[in-house]
Amino acid sequence: MSAATQPWRTREGLALLTDFYELTMMAGYLHEGRADLQVSFEYFFRHLPPHNGFAVAAGLSPFLDYLEHLKFDDDDIDYLRSQDIFDAEFLSYLRQFKPRCTVRAVPEGTLVFPNEPVVQVEGSIFETQLIESALLNMLNYQTLIATKASRVNLAAEGEPVMEFGLRRAHGPDGALSGSRAAYIGGCTSTSNVLAGKIYGIPVSGTHAHSWVMSFSNELDAFRAFARRYPERCVLLVDTYDTIESGVPNAIRVFTELLEQGIPVRTAIRLDSGDLAKLSKIAYRMMRDAGIENPTIVASNDLEEDLIADLKRQGAKINAWGVGTHLITSRDCPSLSGVYKLVAVREDGAWQPRMKISSNLSKATNPCRKQVVRYFDEYDQPLGDVMYDMDEQWQADGVIRGRDDTQPHRPIKLRRAARGEPLLKTVFEAGKRTYDEPVSVMRERYLGQLGKLQDEYKRLRNPEIYRVMLSEQVGAFKEERLNRSDAV
Amino acid sequence: MSAATQPWRTREGLALLTDFYELTMMAGYLHEGRADLQVSFEYFFRHLPPHNGFAVAAGLSPFLDYLEHLKFDDDDIDYLRSQDIFDAEFLSYLRQFKPRCTVRAVPEGTLVFPNEPVVQVEGSIFETQLIESALLNMLNYQTLIATKASRVNLAAEGEPVMEFGLRRAHGPDGALSGSRAAYIGGCTSTSNVLAGKIYGIPVSGTHAHSWVMSFSNELDAFRAFARRYPERCVLLVDTYDTIESGVPNAIRVFTELLEQGIPVRTAIRLDSGDLAKLSKIAYRMMRDAGIENPTIVASNDLEEDLIADLKRQGAKINAWGVGTHLITSRDCPSLSGVYKLVAVREDGAWQPRMKISSNLSKATNPCRKQVVRYFDEYDQPLGDVMYDMDEQWQADGVIRGRDDTQPHRPIKLRRAARGEPLLKTVFEAGKRTYDEPVSVMRERYLGQLGKLQDEYKRLRNPEIYRVMLSEQVGAFKEERLNRSDAV
Repeated sequence: MSAATQPWRTREGLALLTDFYELTMMAGYLHEGRADLQVSFEYFFRHLPPHNGFAVAAGLSPFLDYLEHLKFDDDDIDYLRSQDIFDAEFLSYLRQFKPRCTVRAVPEGTLVFPNEPVVQVEGSIFETQLIESALLNMLNYQTLIATKASRVNLAAEGEPVMEFGLRRAHGPDGALSGSRAAYIGGCTSTSNVLAGKIYGIPVSGTHAHSWVMSFSNELDAFRAFARRYPERCVLLVDTYDTIESGVPNAIRVFTELLEQGIPVRTAIRLDSGDLAKLSKIAYRMMRDAGIENPTIVASNDLEEDLIADLKRQGAKINAWGVGTHLITSRDCPSLSGVYKLVAVREDGAWQPRMKISSNLSKATNPCRKQVVRYFDEYDQPLGDVMYDMDEQWQADGVIRGRDDTQPHRPIKLRRAARGEPLLKTVFEAGKRTYDEPVSVMRERYLGQLGKLQDEYKRLRNPEIYRVMLSEQVGAFKEERLNRSDAV
Repeated sequence: MSAATQPWRTREGLALLTDFYELTMMAGYLHEGRADLQVSFEYFFRHLPPHNGFAVAAGLSPFLDYLEHLKFDDDDIDYLRSQDIFDAEFLSYLRQFKPRCTVRAVPEGTLVFPNEPVVQVEGSIFETQLIESALLNMLNYQTLIATKASRVNLAAEGEPVMEFGLRRAHGPDGALSGSRAAYIGGCTSTSNVLAGKIYGIPVSGTHAHSWVMSFSNELDAFRAFARRYPERCVLLVDTYDTIESGVPNAIRVFTELLEQGIPVRTAIRLDSGDLAKLSKIAYRMMRDAGIENPTIVASNDLEEDLIADLKRQGAKINAWGVGTHLITSRDCPSLSGVYKLVAVREDGAWQPRMKISSNLSKATNPCRKQVVRYFDEYDQPLGDVMYDMDEQWQADGVIRGRDDTQPHRPIKLRRAARGEPLLKTVFEAGKRTYDEPVSVMRERYLGQLGKLQDEYKRLRNPEIYRVMLSEQVGAFKEERLNRSDAV
């Protein structure tokens, strides 16, 4: 497939997808002779969405697509000139701009936790500022949705969850990016055909109320659909009356086909009403009619708590269509990811920087950092430690460090069998060095989830996963906070 | 600007941006020999976002862009063939497909209310099903955000509201579409430069904490920024300590420049802490230093209720930067817009159709409808009436009709001076017939808002605007409901 037919994938023409203040700052740096100042920024989030024990990193690959294609066209420059604020030197510098930064990041599908770097960007202050907004935009949204999908799938306890969110997603790309992230976070399919095509996600879907309404009666509508698609058949039974009309008509059609030896999939979908009650009645009616193992799909404003509650009530539902509340992450429609300066290169050495705040929890963690995840002898994760990128990290044993919000406080991880650094180089010298199918990201997520202790997977009050600073980074942060008048 | 540099605008390559079930239904219709059945669908929403008295229609123009460029490429067909469910006849039909439908809609920026058609699509069932998902996706999101922006602007009572949502929006297009909708709904500018370029929205922005942190001290950072951009200057004063450091340094820089005769804009931005208290202290400090009429911009997770509360406390804030909660519509991140079959053409005449539901409020309003808005002698709106498209609507006087959820109930509008039909033809014979700059849509919104009675604009418990069925449509709905066993 050519780039021309995949604009959403190549991310061309997005150089101006940035906040205006990035450009005013960039022009300022150039004017000050500081545009080439080498700096290091980190992307992290301070809080998990409510009730979550972990998040699922997603959105990196689209960001790298954007970065690889980042250039200012003549009409971008013309537009900026028309703002009457930028001088010719800056505009000409922009016209020739190519990203030269180095990006390190955790691969998509990795479980991640508050305050640890998920992406690290190192390069001139000119380019690292430019790309801030696009990075935040893509990583925040996709990480949010992969995390929500993970929750919904945990509630469904291994039963298939189909993502149906296209019609309520935030614009075409909100839908595409959302389907992608939902799949990474464990969904089994999407209804969005374009997402299926672009990302190789399995697609699924059946028919709508309008199919039924376009026929003169429901029975004819069901018969036509089931004969056309026997193996992928799911009949939507609630257009007129679920129990009086929809389920009896579905049973009649299934029975007709089965009697004719046509291997129809005996599946119905409930999209309104009391899902617990209707599913039990429908199940009994289908069983009484001799239909073995019917599939009952439920949809209609589902999310994890409702799915968990339906399961608690013994609802006879065994597949879930989840749309609106998944694709918008209804209870928390944004992830509070930020992108903060952590070091500046001066006289050939990296000088740590941090934002001091009167609110201690908003003070950033200084230094260019590597995150090492430690595992016990059963290969279950014990916790993560943020080391300075240039620091030698401890391979195993008891790991001692500092609490990141109270860096004077020594804390430790119990005996580790091994450690694994999470950040890899994903972009260098203008080229991405990370590319993998979403199915691999999904497998990574499922693999890590499988190893994670159940305490972190609760839908309410999960245990808090330990993330700490290395001795060296913690001591630096403590000293810097003590020096500051502001705290 | 060429189409190639504006993929997000031309909407090429989006034919597969549809739910899979639309395609299975389309193939089914073709197989049944019913693909050319002429039908009429309407887009409407059942509920306003919480506490809203009205919504602001947006998203039509992007939908028409999509429709005008709708075609299946070879690789779309190859992808569908790979699904092993569609036959060659259907795929070849798709390859030659061009939209021939007629679309009628209210222009963007129009105030709209529950249950009335915002968009009406008339054509073959084949094409009207195909486009459902994209229509819902674009209209739902942009109408949601224009409506949220309207609320935020009502709370700000005419003070400028800058939209800052790019970094927390749902993907690149979520940000672009969101900036567009926020502007239609009354925002004065966006921080998103690409949205500024594409849609002609004014852009605004200042500097970030990183600007300050990249200098060895805050004073140097402020000095450099204010000298570079005196007329657009806004200094972010909370990197270290707002009152001890930020505001005094800002005052020092403003005073230096003013003494040198440089006309600096004496503006600061507060982005953390107690905004009410800090704004009052900062205002007093600036006034005491002889700075007349300082501008104090506030940001940091603002939304309408917080803005209203800050105003109630007498906060000295006179400009508002609103990002995350506006661009995601935090309290209600989706609009429940739906697209329902309202009529089928049989034997040369339109036959009304409706979805009956055991929940009476979910029963749809039958017939192809025109919405007429009636105004009193002061040109204030009295209410809307849904007529059958082919029915003669009453020009003025007392307007009698039926309650749309209880159609046996006669209701009326008090004496109308004039009526205005809202739905116009916007797409016909493969071409859009509606195109206007977003500034015109914004003016339309502001004009209609200006006429609307204050009771509908409350942030809590607004009066419910009257929307009713014409006698004819109401009588039909009543008769059809009475005939149904399901109700």
